[in-house]
Amino acid sequence: MPQYVTFSAEYLRDFTTRVFIHFGVPEQDAVAAADVLSKADLRGIDSHGVARLRTYVDMFTIGRINPRPDIKIVRDKKSVATVDGDSGLGLVVAPRANEIAMEKAAQHGSGWVSVCNTNHYGIASYYSLKALERDMIGWSMTNTSKTVVPLWGAERRLGTNPIAIAFPGLKNPPIVIDLSTSVVAFGKVEIAERAGTPLPEGWIIDGNGNMSTNPADVYKGGLMPLGSTRELGAHKGYCLSAMVDILTSVLSGANWGPFVPPFALFEEVPDQSVGKGIGHFFGAMEIDGFEEVEVFKKRIDHWIEVFRNTKPAPGHQAVLIPGDPEHDAEKTRSKYGIPVIESVVNDLREIAKMTKVDFQSTGGS
Amino acid sequence: MPQYVTFSAEYLRDFTTRVFIHFGVPEQDAVAAADVLSKADLRGIDSHGVARLRTYVDMFTIGRINPRPDIKIVRDKKSVATVDGDSGLGLVVAPRANEIAMEKAAQHGSGWVSVCNTNHYGIASYYSLKALERDMIGWSMTNTSKTVVPLWGAERRLGTNPIAIAFPGLKNPPIVIDLSTSVVAFGKVEIAERAGTPLPEGWIIDGNGNMSTNPADVYKGGLMPLGSTRELGAHKGYCLSAMVDILTSVLSGANWGPFVPPFALFEEVPDQSVGKGIGHFFGAMEIDGFEEVEVFKKRIDHWIEVFRNTKPAPGHQAVLIPGDPEHDAEKTRSKYGIPVIESVVNDLREIAKMTKVDFQSTGGS
Repeated sequence: MPQYVTFSAEYLRDFTTRVFIHFGVPEQDAVAAADVLSKADLRGIDSHGVARLRTYVDMFTIGRINPRPDIKIVRDKKSVATVDGDSGLGLVVAPRANEIAMEKAAQHGSGWVSVCNTNHYGIASYYSLKALERDMIGWSMTNTSKTVVPLWGAERRLGTNPIAIAFPGLKNPPIVIDLSTSVVAFGKVEIAERAGTPLPEGWIIDGNGNMSTNPADVYKGGLMPLGSTRELGAHKGYCLSAMVDILTSVLSGANWGPFVPPFALFEEVPDQSVGKGIGHFFGAMEIDGFEEVEVFKKRIDHWIEVFRNTKPAPGHQAVLIPGDPEHDAEKTRSKYGIPVIESVVNDLREIAKMTKVDFQSTGGS
Repeated sequence: MPQYVTFSAEYLRDFTTRVFIHFGVPEQDAVAAADVLSKADLRGIDSHGVARLRTYVDMFTIGRINPRPDIKIVRDKKSVATVDGDSGLGLVVAPRANEIAMEKAAQHGSGWVSVCNTNHYGIASYYSLKALERDMIGWSMTNTSKTVVPLWGAERRLGTNPIAIAFPGLKNPPIVIDLSTSVVAFGKVEIAERAGTPLPEGWIIDGNGNMSTNPADVYKGGLMPLGSTRELGAHKGYCLSAMVDILTSVLSGANWGPFVPPFALFEEVPDQSVGKGIGHFFGAMEIDGFEEVEVFKKRIDHWIEVFRNTKPAPGHQAVLIPGDPEHDAEKTRSKYGIPVIESVVNDLREIAKMTKVDFQSTGGS
């Protein structure tokens, strides 16, 4: 059984901030970046929190990330813009680009920003949640390095390319939608491989393009898009992933499809580049431009109540509202802290040693 | 074997126009509405072309559609607006609302319109294709009456709620994405029922909330969202469908979820109304606000070529580009005409009799 050590969100956020500062990131940017990882930990999305710090550190170490990027609007027209992230940390570029989208929304009713020359940006929903603070509906997308095969293909061409959007309730917590356009995250296949368990049919193909239930086959084959098979709609998952790839990267001048540079050190770097870095896409719409904010929030409350009261299927207690599990995790973890798995604690201890940033590996608050 | 009669697109479009005029629709609106149905026939989406004329006629006959709607912006702020369709034909309200989104995009870089008090609007991609004519990226969504169960639910709460978006190539035809957020269209279950064949696992549940392969069970149960099961990501299809429901209808003040009024005469009318009509959502973004139009189109060409050259899976010749089948159909049908199945020809003959509009049931060009 894996062991866990509990830390407060503040402790981990502070540690992360200081690690980023060590690599030359200005304090304000380091705080912003650490906040993105912290939100993932708080919301129970463990794969995208401090567990990823190791990879960001690797990227700094090999010089792939610019700690002091000059993030610039390179082209714009009122409500829309293209932003160049100057090869900065995605966790710094993305909050700034999202900010630009929201500033445009405040001025023009909506704001839409396609971003090139950036890197991994953490959880997609972080940016949609930020828009809620200003009574805006926020969209967030990013492309990622290739792990997914297009339907009827036998090789990886697309990332897990997530889409996020959020809607505020008045009395209820917001509806938070955040989904990868692949059938599952790559990490779930790795977990099955480590556990030695076969995969469900429909998750992956092998290197010959045949469906497989052997996790190890994913490395030569790839993940299926959402829908798994033609019969169950995998052309739709492929379309959604393509949409994200184009809005984030073909539009901004980033690398797209099979040319997206990888996030992790051990992943293969494509032998061709067709743009700069990876790409994101952010949208923000002022609710007030469509409807009185309170009226809209009340309607969302009503929507939530109606869907919560759906007659449940056998074996299930209730239909969930998108964002429910993450909201519950945030409530618990804000109060009781964040359980970090031993292997990640070891990573953090090594990072502390390398960067000479204090770290209490028995837990901190 | 069903028999088909071939008509030219122009002949069917003209007939449809005159039928709408018969019901009091002004000529210009009738032309616009007929064009939407015609595009579906040309693009091979037979379920959404003249085959639907019968239902529109039914709706006019029972007075559910206002032939001369006063379509109005009821609230707006620069790039965003809410439009009230005054209970008009969706095929009239939607082209006008999409026009408003594109006018806003020309002025503000992008335009976003949520529409209430409208009806069935035809194929979602019609509106995205219109945006291409102005070098814009066009988004289109609509909600529809309930046929889909949320994951872990045992009753219908959502429509098949499609999402469309399109991207122009320079030398290549555009990438056209148009997908319902359910595992399949309701019509595919009806076809299996008529043919007496069982359904694939993962399409529907029965009235008790259990998975079923018996098509007849769909009437008491419902369609699954894209993803089919929790293991294959049905929570994602549910989230996408919810997103469409909220952007089209909670935002605009239309009916949402289980309260959406039905399109067809034989469908049950919900006993409660929470808004006006059904809802649409349109977006348009000026490509030029992000990147030089020709540069973007060349990149799309490159994207298309790379994806077309994906190594194919066994048993498949090639990976398709979204919109390929519809583009091929349009090429063929523009030239050789549109094959209309006998039962639909009979419907058209009856409509002709009722409306006293000339109709050549042996084919026309």
